[in-house]
Amino acid sequence: MTYTPPVAEQSFLLRHVVGIDALASHPRFGEATPDLVQAILEGVGALAAGTFAPLNRVGDEIGATWTPDGVTLPPGFREAYRAYVDGGWGTLAGPPEHGGQGLPLVLASVVLEDLGSANMGFSLVMMLSAGAVEALKHHGSAELQQLWLPKLVTGEFSGTMNLTEPQAGSDVGALKTKAVPNGDGRWRISGQKIFITFGEHDLAENIVHLVLARTPDAPPGTRGISLFLVPKFLPAADGSPGARNDVRCVSIEHKMGIHASPTCVMSYGDEDRCIGWLIGEEQGGMRAMFTMMNNARLNVGLQGVSIAEAATQAAVAYASGRVQGARDSRPAAILQHPDVRRMLLRMKALTQAARALAYYAAGQTDRATLGDAAAKARADLLTPLVKAYGTDVGVEVASLGVQVHGGMGYIEETGAAQHLRDIRIAPIYEGTNGIQAADLVGRKIGLDGGEVLAALLRDIAADTEDEPALRALAATADGAAKHLLSASPDDRLAGSYPFLTLLSILVCGWLMKRQLDALERDPELDPRFASMKRAAARFYIDRVVPEALGLAAGATAGAALLYSVEEDAFAA
Amino acid sequence: MTYTPPVAEQSFLLRHVVGIDALASHPRFGEATPDLVQAILEGVGALAAGTFAPLNRVGDEIGATWTPDGVTLPPGFREAYRAYVDGGWGTLAGPPEHGGQGLPLVLASVVLEDLGSANMGFSLVMMLSAGAVEALKHHGSAELQQLWLPKLVTGEFSGTMNLTEPQAGSDVGALKTKAVPNGDGRWRISGQKIFITFGEHDLAENIVHLVLARTPDAPPGTRGISLFLVPKFLPAADGSPGARNDVRCVSIEHKMGIHASPTCVMSYGDEDRCIGWLIGEEQGGMRAMFTMMNNARLNVGLQGVSIAEAATQAAVAYASGRVQGARDSRPAAILQHPDVRRMLLRMKALTQAARALAYYAAGQTDRATLGDAAAKARADLLTPLVKAYGTDVGVEVASLGVQVHGGMGYIEETGAAQHLRDIRIAPIYEGTNGIQAADLVGRKIGLDGGEVLAALLRDIAADTEDEPALRALAATADGAAKHLLSASPDDRLAGSYPFLTLLSILVCGWLMKRQLDALERDPELDPRFASMKRAAARFYIDRVVPEALGLAAGATAGAALLYSVEEDAFAA
Repeated sequence: MTYTPPVAEQSFLLRHVVGIDALASHPRFGEATPDLVQAILEGVGALAAGTFAPLNRVGDEIGATWTPDGVTLPPGFREAYRAYVDGGWGTLAGPPEHGGQGLPLVLASVVLEDLGSANMGFSLVMMLSAGAVEALKHHGSAELQQLWLPKLVTGEFSGTMNLTEPQAGSDVGALKTKAVPNGDGRWRISGQKIFITFGEHDLAENIVHLVLARTPDAPPGTRGISLFLVPKFLPAADGSPGARNDVRCVSIEHKMGIHASPTCVMSYGDEDRCIGWLIGEEQGGMRAMFTMMNNARLNVGLQGVSIAEAATQAAVAYASGRVQGARDSRPAAILQHPDVRRMLLRMKALTQAARALAYYAAGQTDRATLGDAAAKARADLLTPLVKAYGTDVGVEVASLGVQVHGGMGYIEETGAAQHLRDIRIAPIYEGTNGIQAADLVGRKIGLDGGEVLAALLRDIAADTEDEPALRALAATADGAAKHLLSASPDDRLAGSYPFLTLLSILVCGWLMKRQLDALERDPELDPRFASMKRAAARFYIDRVVPEALGLAAGATAGAALLYSVEEDAFAA
Repeated sequence: MTYTPPVAEQSFLLRHVVGIDALASHPRFGEATPDLVQAILEGVGALAAGTFAPLNRVGDEIGATWTPDGVTLPPGFREAYRAYVDGGWGTLAGPPEHGGQGLPLVLASVVLEDLGSANMGFSLVMMLSAGAVEALKHHGSAELQQLWLPKLVTGEFSGTMNLTEPQAGSDVGALKTKAVPNGDGRWRISGQKIFITFGEHDLAENIVHLVLARTPDAPPGTRGISLFLVPKFLPAADGSPGARNDVRCVSIEHKMGIHASPTCVMSYGDEDRCIGWLIGEEQGGMRAMFTMMNNARLNVGLQGVSIAEAATQAAVAYASGRVQGARDSRPAAILQHPDVRRMLLRMKALTQAARALAYYAAGQTDRATLGDAAAKARADLLTPLVKAYGTDVGVEVASLGVQVHGGMGYIEETGAAQHLRDIRIAPIYEGTNGIQAADLVGRKIGLDGGEVLAALLRDIAADTEDEPALRALAATADGAAKHLLSASPDDRLAGSYPFLTLLSILVCGWLMKRQLDALERDPELDPRFASMKRAAARFYIDRVVPEALGLAAGATAGAALLYSVEEDAFAA
């Protein structure tokens, strides 16, 4: 596949939606000058386009392969990974005291976005490592940090998240993996984990597994869970990879997509000599895990943007070159036909909107790092929206991409089908979108007595006085939120998903409106870019936003109808 | 996979939506007694569940394989096909004078629905043969009919449709395949066709290709196209398969799904000895092809129902068995959780609604056969809705099916992913859904000066007086239709797809309401069936119908915004 990094769009969003200049005015992020930001966008764009994209097809066709000795990636992946490490791309947002550059998180997210557009399966190894860095940075002891962070930050070592077990998926608290003291301050880990992304591979020198497990006499459920660091190779005296630890990848899954990402069944302690180190407090595992997960949820939402971008680029290229039918009595590329334009503009609008939402939330996280409590709360509120709506957009846009290609879209050689197959995992992993919706209505809309949501709605109201569709949707969202806040738990959950989509489209519509306004303040833009931005924003506000109004019915309908049928009637 | 034929649902729809008893009261369809209908539903259900479903995975994993000598299907397919032929399942709606049973088309559609649920890729060979029978029945000479129809009706021979060429997809008129007189009343065919479903295989004794080609001096575009019958084996003196004709399958495509269906590149006349027979008039090819296509479009819409049904059954089974989390402090199957119930009920509602629409349209086609001109016009109006909305529902429900399975849905072994991969072709082939939308706003809503649509809206109004959501949507549809009828061609096409979806949901909502009313008149129903029907209908009317209101914005927004950007701005 070919991929053109959307540098102009990313730069525009960083300036006008994230407010990167304001972030850089703080000493903590002072390095994030316009020149450096531009260099990052162009540099990672070149890496993604030149090195990662050419491996996308072979990653799909050959993919990761398992043998008893380990998992190997197809030819070219090791070299590409090395280019990522050597370029220092993993270090952007890493802690400066451990070799990181301490730049805003949003820039690290842009790196993942580009790599994900070019090669989603491959990019997961970088995403997981970033999460491991976050967890260690916030919860690991100084000793663990010194030993592991420098090489995790660069990517010389990679990281994993080990939550899921066969009986413990969304219900993490049901996990059974055990940790017992080894008598030397270390722990012995035993159990089986499934769905472990890049749990085993041949790209990095070592793999640092972050493993949720249960210590002796721990209470049941999530309260009794602790987090452990379990390396593939135990550290030698100098910290370099030493003896093989008692952990192995038993098999990898045969999946619909992201074939370059080995999804591993991991077995810990088959020989009862699997060594791990406690991260943070005993029984403090869920807190540490949430640190990883919040970061990862933003990045998974951005994967939706990655694939939406790649799918849109492919569809535009195909529609520009495919001549079929006529306009004004002359043979016309299908891009000239109204309904194809509708599809392409919808793809553009959804992609831009979801990207704006993800960048905005990442920017709020960076403001939180600077001590802004309101930004922290807003990031918390928006995280489930980024994850769920971003990935839903990814699936819809990828599916539209197949459609624009017509019959060729169904043929694997064009790559359009791979985009849809790849992105279909994103609404599932890192907390299903249903779990995100439950988080939104169960915790987030009630934050600070509802004031966090209210403040967001006030900001939206202030910016959208001249946009009746957005005002109508804001009023609907406000009413639905108030309804849900006073509803029973079941009624709330029954309406959670429609409400999440409704609120996401409202926030995205607001951010598109802010971009429209910013166009006036940015007169030096490429006129083609400005005209497309204007069209995409108006498409979103005038056509997508009205579609969301009807979601209020489902958001407020309650659970009674869902329980009006007995369980066995579903199979009747 | 396992598949349980939805006999109760099919029977309910045939009685209350199709009005099968009224059809059977006419001598032409007198054989369609309640007992026979029930026997058909149960018989084909058993064939689908017992013989076709067990081959679904191997059809995906091995699929059709090409060699220079031909295309072979995996082990078991020949025997299953034989069971279909021996059971007489292909003969249901076939012409009695050529071995058919002359039953209503809607019953033949139910047969295809079941086979498609059990094994979509495989079922395509039957669907294509049915289309070939229709074309020959209406347009072939008596001689051609006698020679070919009896074995096409039984399925001993299979049929194909050959329209597409590399430069001629949606724009059929651009095709270049040639036919020249052979001097003996026959024609010599030469050219290449692509995307030919079951263009070559080892299931039937002969393959009857219906091929669009251009005769010498024919005018350009669709007007100059003629239809030819080109058999794989030329008929021997007794009509049995004789010498090999000069037609071959050059390669098959590597597709996202329906791997059991070989998608062939066909080459005609490489040695200039490919013999064909003209069907109907010279330059009358498009008319004959539309006969096939209208039938095929109904059946492709029903494929959406087939996969929606299979995906729903799989999701219900998984959600019933997968314990995760708790309700009332007891471990609970995920079917017990509100958002999973929402997904399952949405799947049920969409599936039932799309099935009702498809059956209703097929029933109108059967009334047309009895000479009812209004029914013929209504079938014409509804055909693009059945095809496009039915297949869109298929994709949405299959995707929800993956979601209900969580991480397991992304693993190929569960089959949920295959449903999504299989059905993703359906919005594309047999006229893309965009083409359906163009047909709706370009031809169908203006039929008889708009009276065909107006009559439908009157029927809807009469049945929905006590349903405010449906009344609101009907008013919106009426307004949007009037707007489109007076709009410019570009504005009409720009709004075509949102309008098609809006109108489809209105018609489906109406048919769901009619089923609700019918429940009162059918007191002997299984109470579990009745409770689920009630819940699915209310879900559709109260939650899906309101979502469609917002589509009016896009339906009436016009094309100006789509053309406010230059072509090269899409790549900016």
